[in-house]
Amino acid sequence: MVPTVEWKDGAVRLLDQSRLPMHVEFLDCHDYREVAQAIRELKVRGAPAIGVTAAMGMALGARALKTTDYEEFVGAVDAIGDLLAASRPTAVNLFWAIARMKQKLAALKGQPVARIQEELVTESQTILDEDIALCKAMGRHGAGLIRSGQTILTHCNAGALATAGYGTALGVIRAAWEQGKQIRVIADETRPVLQGARLTAWELMQDKIPVTLITDNMAGALMRQGKIQLCVVGADRIAANGDVANKIGTYSVAVLARAHDIPFYVAAPYSTIDLNTPSGAGIPIEERNPLEVTAIHGSHPVAPDGVEVFNPAFDITPAELITGIITERGLFKPSEIATQFRL
Amino acid sequence: MVPTVEWKDGAVRLLDQSRLPMHVEFLDCHDYREVAQAIRELKVRGAPAIGVTAAMGMALGARALKTTDYEEFVGAVDAIGDLLAASRPTAVNLFWAIARMKQKLAALKGQPVARIQEELVTESQTILDEDIALCKAMGRHGAGLIRSGQTILTHCNAGALATAGYGTALGVIRAAWEQGKQIRVIADETRPVLQGARLTAWELMQDKIPVTLITDNMAGALMRQGKIQLCVVGADRIAANGDVANKIGTYSVAVLARAHDIPFYVAAPYSTIDLNTPSGAGIPIEERNPLEVTAIHGSHPVAPDGVEVFNPAFDITPAELITGIITERGLFKPSEIATQFRL
Repeated sequence: MVPTVEWKDGAVRLLDQSRLPMHVEFLDCHDYREVAQAIRELKVRGAPAIGVTAAMGMALGARALKTTDYEEFVGAVDAIGDLLAASRPTAVNLFWAIARMKQKLAALKGQPVARIQEELVTESQTILDEDIALCKAMGRHGAGLIRSGQTILTHCNAGALATAGYGTALGVIRAAWEQGKQIRVIADETRPVLQGARLTAWELMQDKIPVTLITDNMAGALMRQGKIQLCVVGADRIAANGDVANKIGTYSVAVLARAHDIPFYVAAPYSTIDLNTPSGAGIPIEERNPLEVTAIHGSHPVAPDGVEVFNPAFDITPAELITGIITERGLFKPSEIATQFRL
Repeated sequence: MVPTVEWKDGAVRLLDQSRLPMHVEFLDCHDYREVAQAIRELKVRGAPAIGVTAAMGMALGARALKTTDYEEFVGAVDAIGDLLAASRPTAVNLFWAIARMKQKLAALKGQPVARIQEELVTESQTILDEDIALCKAMGRHGAGLIRSGQTILTHCNAGALATAGYGTALGVIRAAWEQGKQIRVIADETRPVLQGARLTAWELMQDKIPVTLITDNMAGALMRQGKIQLCVVGADRIAANGDVANKIGTYSVAVLARAHDIPFYVAAPYSTIDLNTPSGAGIPIEERNPLEVTAIHGSHPVAPDGVEVFNPAFDITPAELITGIITERGLFKPSEIATQFRL
C-alpha cells in the first residue's frame, strides 16, 4: 500500500483520496493551511488519518515560524492548532492529536525553539508510527472474531487509507486474511462520497482480499438472505457510554444487523474514545455541502437544480446496538469503555 | 406533468426517464422492438408504466402486421407479447398487461384483422386511462393516512412517472397535498439508478410539493431523530401472502420503520397483485448490469476497474413489516390481499 500520509522532504505528503481509485496522486503540503484545506476537502479522511495529518500539519506550521521566543512561539503554534482543529468537527482524533502536540510543546518548555521545532516533527512521526502499531494490535484482537468461510460487511473506509496504515475495521479483516482465513468482504459503496466504492474496494483489491461492492440500500436484503455473518466498521468518536459516531449509514447497518441477529463490531484506537462526551447526543455532527449529494465528484449532476438536501456526514449508533468495540487493548463491551480507558 | 407514455401519431411516445432531470426528451417508438428496448434500458420504468407501455407496444406491433388471416395474426401478436414479456422479469404489471391484450384479441375472434388492430390500440389506451383512474382512487383512499405537519419518506419513484400519471405512492402524497395538508417528502435518492434523486425530487418540485433529498443510508438516522412520521412506497409485485417486491432498499426502509414504530405503507393497483405467486420467495429478482453501480449514468466511474458487484434491482419486503396496502379498492392488511383480490 502507498502511504496515506508521510513527512517527506520537509513537507506533508498526502495521498489525494478524493482522486482515488481513478488517479493515484500525491499532494505535497508546504504550509499548514494547505493541510487544513486538504482535511476539509476530504483529500485525507478517516479519523485516525486525520489525527496523524493534523499533528504533521502542526509540526509543519511550527517549523516555519521565525521567532526564537518561546512564548511567542507557543502562541503561534496554538493558533495553528486552532485553525487545524476547525477543519472538521466530528472525528475526535483530530482534537486528540492537536492536544498531544500541545502537551509535547509544553513539556519542551525551556528548550531552544529550533530544538522544539524538530521535536514536534519527531512527535508527529511518533504519532504516525503508533497509529500503525495500534491498528496491528486491533487486528490481532479482532481477527479471532472472524471465522473462515464468513462474509463480512463493512461501511465506508476504515482501512489503511483511513489510518497511517493497516486500518481499524479493515485491519481486523486484514489480520484474519493474513491468518489464512477464507473470507469475503461486502463493501457498502457509502454515499455520498463513495468511500466504500472508491477506497475500500480499491484497498482490498490491492491486497487481493475478495470484495463485493454493493449500494448501501442492498445490505438489508443480503442479511435477510443469510449472506452476511458479521459487520465491522470504524469510528469517528466513541462517547463515554459507548455510543459511536461514524459515517452516515452506520446506524442503519447496526439496526439491520440487530434485526437479523448478526454481530456488529466497531474497531477503533484509544484516540477515538472521548470520555469528555457522556453520550452520542453530545457529539457534533458535521453537515456538508449539498453538492456531495446532488453531483457525483462535484461535477456530474444527478438531481434537479435547486433541490433541498440534507447531508449529515455522520450518524450516532447507540451502544445497545454494538456487540463489541475492538481496541488495541482488546475487545470490550461498549459499557466497559469508560472504565477501561479512564485516564 | 408531461405524459410518461402516450399513443401519438401512430407511435408510442415515451418520456425518456433515463435522461431526467437534466434533459426532458421524448422517444418515439415506431416498432415494438424499440418499446421492448426502452423498457430494458429503463427509459420507461415503474411497474404500472411498464404495463401500459407494453400494452401500447403490443398494439404498435399488431398494427404493423400485414396479414389478414386471424390465426396467423394471433400467432404473430403472441410472439410480440413474448418479446415484450422478456424485457424485465420482476414487475408483474408487464405480464398482466400482455395477458389482458391477449384476452382482448381472443374476444375479438371473428372480426376482421384491420378492425382488431384498431381495437387493440383502443384497449391499450383504455389500460392507460384506467391506470390514471386507479392512481386517483388510491390517492383518495390513502390521503387520509397522512396528517398535516407530517414528513413522509418514500423510496425510488412511485409517482406520475412510474404510472400513466398521478402515481401510486406519490399519488397518495399528491392527494394529501391537494387536500391542503402541509407535508414534506423525504426522497431516498435510490441507488444505483437514482430514481429518487432524478425522478421523485423532480416530479415533486414540478408540483411544488416540499421535498428533501437524502442518500439511502440517511433514512435510519432521520427516523431515530423523529423526523419521519410515515413511509409509503410502490410495488413491482405483491404475492398472495402480502409479501411485496419493490426497488432494492425497500426492505431496509421497512425494517428501519418497524424499529422506530413508523407506519410503512405500500400503494399499488390490482394489476400489481399476483395471486399465482404464493409468497415473495417465488418472485424472480432481476439482477442488472454491474455498470449501474460502478459508473454513474454508465459513463462516470466511481469504483475500481474490475471490482465484483452484486446488483439486484429489487428486494422482498415480507408482509409482517407492512402496515397496510393502499389499493384502488381501499386500504387492506397484507393478509387480506388474497381474499380481496380473488378473481
